[in-house]
Amino acid sequence: MPRELLLNAFDMNTVGHLAHGLWRHPRDQARRYTDIHYWQSLAQTLERGLFDGLFLADAVGLYDVYGGGPEAALEAGVQVPANDPAVLVPAMAAVTQHLGFGITANLSHEPPYLFARRMSTLDHLSQGRLGWNIVTGFLDSTARAHGQPSQTRHDERYDRADDYMALVYQLWEGSWADDAVLADPASGQYTRPERVRTVRHQGPYYQLEAIHLSEPSPQRTPLLFQAGASARGLRFAARHAEALFLPNQGLQGTAQLVQQLAGSLQAEGRPRDSYRLLTSLEVVVGRDADEARDKYADYARHARPQAALVQLASATGIDFSRYAPDEPIRPDSLGEGIQSIVRSLAQSAGHGPDGAVTVRELLAQMPLGGRINPIVGSPDEVAAALLHWADHTGVDGFNLVRTVTPECFVDFIDLVVPRLQALGRYKTAYAPGTLREKLTGHGPHLPAAHPGAQARQATACPPHAGRPAPRP
Amino acid sequence: MPRELLLNAFDMNTVGHLAHGLWRHPRDQARRYTDIHYWQSLAQTLERGLFDGLFLADAVGLYDVYGGGPEAALEAGVQVPANDPAVLVPAMAAVTQHLGFGITANLSHEPPYLFARRMSTLDHLSQGRLGWNIVTGFLDSTARAHGQPSQTRHDERYDRADDYMALVYQLWEGSWADDAVLADPASGQYTRPERVRTVRHQGPYYQLEAIHLSEPSPQRTPLLFQAGASARGLRFAARHAEALFLPNQGLQGTAQLVQQLAGSLQAEGRPRDSYRLLTSLEVVVGRDADEARDKYADYARHARPQAALVQLASATGIDFSRYAPDEPIRPDSLGEGIQSIVRSLAQSAGHGPDGAVTVRELLAQMPLGGRINPIVGSPDEVAAALLHWADHTGVDGFNLVRTVTPECFVDFIDLVVPRLQALGRYKTAYAPGTLREKLTGHGPHLPAAHPGAQARQATACPPHAGRPAPRP
Repeated sequence: MPRELLLNAFDMNTVGHLAHGLWRHPRDQARRYTDIHYWQSLAQTLERGLFDGLFLADAVGLYDVYGGGPEAALEAGVQVPANDPAVLVPAMAAVTQHLGFGITANLSHEPPYLFARRMSTLDHLSQGRLGWNIVTGFLDSTARAHGQPSQTRHDERYDRADDYMALVYQLWEGSWADDAVLADPASGQYTRPERVRTVRHQGPYYQLEAIHLSEPSPQRTPLLFQAGASARGLRFAARHAEALFLPNQGLQGTAQLVQQLAGSLQAEGRPRDSYRLLTSLEVVVGRDADEARDKYADYARHARPQAALVQLASATGIDFSRYAPDEPIRPDSLGEGIQSIVRSLAQSAGHGPDGAVTVRELLAQMPLGGRINPIVGSPDEVAAALLHWADHTGVDGFNLVRTVTPECFVDFIDLVVPRLQALGRYKTAYAPGTLREKLTGHGPHLPAAHPGAQARQATACPPHAGRPAPRP
Repeated sequence: MPRELLLNAFDMNTVGHLAHGLWRHPRDQARRYTDIHYWQSLAQTLERGLFDGLFLADAVGLYDVYGGGPEAALEAGVQVPANDPAVLVPAMAAVTQHLGFGITANLSHEPPYLFARRMSTLDHLSQGRLGWNIVTGFLDSTARAHGQPSQTRHDERYDRADDYMALVYQLWEGSWADDAVLADPASGQYTRPERVRTVRHQGPYYQLEAIHLSEPSPQRTPLLFQAGASARGLRFAARHAEALFLPNQGLQGTAQLVQQLAGSLQAEGRPRDSYRLLTSLEVVVGRDADEARDKYADYARHARPQAALVQLASATGIDFSRYAPDEPIRPDSLGEGIQSIVRSLAQSAGHGPDGAVTVRELLAQMPLGGRINPIVGSPDEVAAALLHWADHTGVDGFNLVRTVTPECFVDFIDLVVPRLQALGRYKTAYAPGTLREKLTGHGPHLPAAHPGAQARQATACPPHAGRPAPRP
């Protein structure tokens, strides 16, 4: 039986996320991102539509490749200003019961002890609805914001990240046993010290000796999302991720990517049913096809494809400002790492693999101010397209990119969700339990085969706290 | 005309804050600290009582001096588990209009770029109601939790903190000009890049080159609280603090402390009207004196003074578990730094300056499980005692320590607030504006004389972003 689609809203604590310029639309409310009631209302809307989660991106730095500085990103509001996403969670959790919250956090600059506590606190306050999208950062501007001249090299970032994860697993899974908290009013005993363990971590990058500050939260470790696509990133994902995001590379491209990724993960011992796969989609839906096309045209009039180039410049390393609109961007004129990126941009513009792409061609592919080709249509058309995407590519669901917000989600909920439900491909009620249980069918804690679960065993050892553990 | 009292509720994102054992009381709700609705309800209660703020303490480590390990703290729930306080703010801000939020954050282990963004985000989401209680930490357990063998020495912690503050002031005050955000739908311009400045900080401890990620929040720099009492701590406070906390050392002791502190700050160029002073008080009020005394006796039956010794052990460095109840703790048997602390404990127990105190005597001073002697009485008695405290010591107001919560605040609001109002010593409505404006009468930004305001000037320099600044 075909599975029900997973669905997240994809957003960011900022004005311009992935559909640049649409904050200018008269019905768009993204400029209210500093208003907590805006976020609470959005969360309630999404829960009304039985969305699995609100997925919040983050970028701890500015896009400064385009034009050799951050001016273009600032001018158009391309993911800047960008506020902290994590602190939104409790307020949204307070007005919802089931909606999950996928929070992007760059571990490279978060001190693990404080970060682990913050995540535990959010998992407590949301009653087990926290997901963490693990990122390691890639912007030089992020490195400079932390006193480093440039970004740590790619593979080493993942080595550090592995060490970081080993540490936080011990805090989340291994420091407090399930039965550590007694909270017995009669005796006055809150915690059984013999069921709490001092974590001692001496890793290559991180060292710590501490008891976790939080008692066990519903999920302990938040549901782990990851989006690594490189060979090293995939090894990291294979080890840690319970759900993965893939970039939308078009229907065929994404289908190929899913195949490659599933093969790589299989080789690392992760069968396809041990993780969820999501990709991004953008939808413009109307009550009928005409209304959808009118709406799309209206949106497109407010979009700023040029702003999307600013983000693409930092993602690819190509300063598009240096090219005239029709000047071919030749792969062989660029550094080796960038050549394959240009070839793929050229291919998506309809050129052969050796063709060169132009800025004008790139802009033409970003009618709503972003790189994702929107699905535009009637409710039936959109529902059919989504199912075709899922069935053809093999993804489990989608991160729906916000366009004009919250209108885009309201439209989707009112028009598309009922069709998907009628087709038996979308839930009609939330499953009970934590985000992990809702999304993966097991939980609330990490499955036993997950490396994080190994940290859990430690509490079965002779208990102690604050003193060296007896050698086994 | 005598001033209206300032009043904060003093709490912590934990079960046992300063009145240990009272979580056992059948009406106490502190065990709900992981429930966001508990905090929202508390915030609404405090706003009904026109409290200036909810002040949240924090401790990023465990008290492990007593018994040479953390077992005693764990057992009694002495500030452990302790969840992150900052993430509570937006949810409480969403259900209130005026209440301020004083959040304790230990800067020693918070990366300044991410921390500055988190604070800006909270100031945005609370519409300018954020205060930051700047602490540098003192527990070795905190240091070990961050990979260091022991705590940085005291004065160097403040040197680091000065450097940290110089950095975050530049992010909060100097990176975005007031008119940087245009948000013009017609042109699509969100930010004027020429009004945004890249901060370049090369301090002895912190380095950074970055644009602040957040656009200016209502207060920019949160209202700055500090509690330094050492010579170096006072120099830090004189430089940075807009409001100071003093430990409650009894009526006479606190009055002396206020005098000394005011003298020290005066010598550093801070006249008494340039900062607010608060100390902690604990109140048990009944509809009449009999009811108050019955309530106090009932509370005391649930308190655990022994647990307060655990906290006192870490605060003083004395392991009280090593003394029999009636064994004198002789100052000259202890290290030099600790001798003066024991002498002051002995004095507060009624001994002469050279006397030795016993554990039994210390316990007798902590009937509600903490070091603060509670004010117990009818509404008139409590109101009179508070005004006597304020007028005799010269503090501007109080942090009311939670006892049985939220009952203690509800009682205070229903019974004491109307008396204080009738006496003209408590506001009958909130003043408009941000927390800074409400508490200090000016704002919303730092006063011009504040060192943080110097960072502001930078935006008047020739604008640039992302490129080296022209040499002046």
